[in-house]
Amino acid sequence: MFKYPMRVRDYECDLQGVVNNSVYQNYFEHARHEFLLESEIDFSDLAEQGVNLMVTRVELDFKRSLRPKHDFYVTVEVEKISRIQYAFIQHIYLLENDQLMVSSKAIGVAVNAKGRPMASPELDRLLNHA
Amino acid sequence: MFKYPMRVRDYECDLQGVVNNSVYQNYFEHARHEFLLESEIDFSDLAEQGVNLMVTRVELDFKRSLRPKHDFYVTVEVEKISRIQYAFIQHIYLLENDQLMVSSKAIGVAVNAKGRPMASPELDRLLNHA
Amino acid sequence: MFKYPMRVRDYECDLQGVVNNSVYQNYFEHARHEFLLESEIDFSDLAEQGVNLMVTRVELDFKRSLRPKHDFYVTVEVEKISRIQYAFIQHIYLLENDQLMVSSKAIGVAVNAKGRPMASPELDRLLNHA
Amino acid sequence: MFKYPMRVRDYECDLQGVVNNSVYQNYFEHARHEFLLESEIDFSDLAEQGVNLMVTRVELDFKRSLRPKHDFYVTVEVEKISRIQYAFIQHIYLLENDQLMVSSKAIGVAVNAKGRPMASPELDRLLNHA
Repeated sequence: MFKYPMRVRDYECDLQGVVNNSVYQNYFEHARHEFLLESEIDFSDLAEQGVNLMVTRVELDFKRSLRPKHDFYVTVEVEKISRIQYAFIQHIYLLENDQLMVSSKAIGVAVNAKGRPMASPELDRLLNHA
Repeated sequence: MFKYPMRVRDYECDLQGVVNNSVYQNYFEHARHEFLLESEIDFSDLAEQGVNLMVTRVELDFKRSLRPKHDFYVTVEVEKISRIQYAFIQHIYLLENDQLMVSSKAIGVAVNAKGRPMASPELDRLLNHA
Repeated sequence: MFKYPMRVRDYECDLQGVVNNSVYQNYFEHARHEFLLESEIDFSDLAEQGVNLMVTRVELDFKRSLRPKHDFYVTVEVEKISRIQYAFIQHIYLLENDQLMVSSKAIGVAVNAKGRPMASPELDRLLNHA
Repeated sequence: MFKYPMRVRDYECDLQGVVNNSVYQNYFEHARHEFLLESEIDFSDLAEQGVNLMVTRVELDFKRSLRPKHDFYVTVEVEKISRIQYAFIQHIYLLENDQLMVSSKAIGVAVNAKGRPMASPELDRLLNHA
């Protein structure tokens, strides 16, 4: 399974002293893009060509809070859920004890330059890979 | 119903030219805190006293993308779903035509200084209010 | 003088309980773009056409910290400092007492699609305006 | 000299397709805090104890833009400039060719629980170290 190591940065923490909820979406997105890159799917190159990978739905479950100096890793698994839809299942675990911190499910589609969802051979490649 | 007007800022847009997905969570959080303030519940004061309002789950449905210079408003409604859990139902609408852009459901609990969830008379006040 | 009203959002505050230093650059940038828009210079449209307004240097002086719920306004003044360089002088003042919180000086140039700095009739228009 | 390796994340890039200017302040702050940690000075622990390391002035020179997938490193050097003031000189270099991208000078002071600047034996330790 794809695992991406990261570390909390102080500026990502809010006045509660923990990582702000919206930042986990950044972590998940970054790990997802690195996962895509590993399969030679480049989010930023595609965007320049007018093909956008769009997320249509996100579910986030916050179990425990990440804090300053926490080292953690983000996992990525992908499932095809319709001809044009993919589900990215992701988790954040604390490095030191593999404790589950946050879980996410993101539904994605590929959208062409006209804004139309399209079947994506690139994303299909991920399925064999995972 | 509580409505909070906002405007897209260019730095909130990413290389796809639209508001980055994680930023919607910022918008929803800010509107939620302004909604709480209107009922004299102050998120940052509570945090200083050791009482944290925590979100345990978020669901986001992205219908259409906000773009630079878009004016929009965020709505907030609250429902009690158990003795200690509250659901915040929120939507983002484009100002010019009331088109639905993004929907969110956030489940929240109040947590005391020891990290224990607790019944919250403050949050209960919101229910009569809404 | 151009003045743009804003309000601190809780997620912009860090674990010191005040607005994180990097966020002031967001505030200044947003106010600057609104200032440009008022003169019909659209940062995001120009970016799409391949003309980028680039900042080459920023100086920031932090006098006092903005905190949750603070209402403030951002001022913008512009000076031409060479054939192709413009200086944006900006200040953030607390709304309730006009107290100076943060000052900024940003040096900007217009850059064409090939990455070359160019004289900009659009930016020159700002000078008469200010 | 202290060097901290980082990698651009797509969400840090704005609609110009490059890292947004304000994000460099995040990079510099994070590298500075890691530098302090190496000398056992913990920014977030100090904040909890009421001792805040505050930046009073920042100068940033943007030479070249970081883009998606760029690997880079941030350097940190420190100089004492008065009894209570420290200057952090920092640079960002592209990993692949050591090209200078952005330079920063940040003036910092330690501030006690009453908001008074104070001489800081902790920060003085950095000077021998550097």
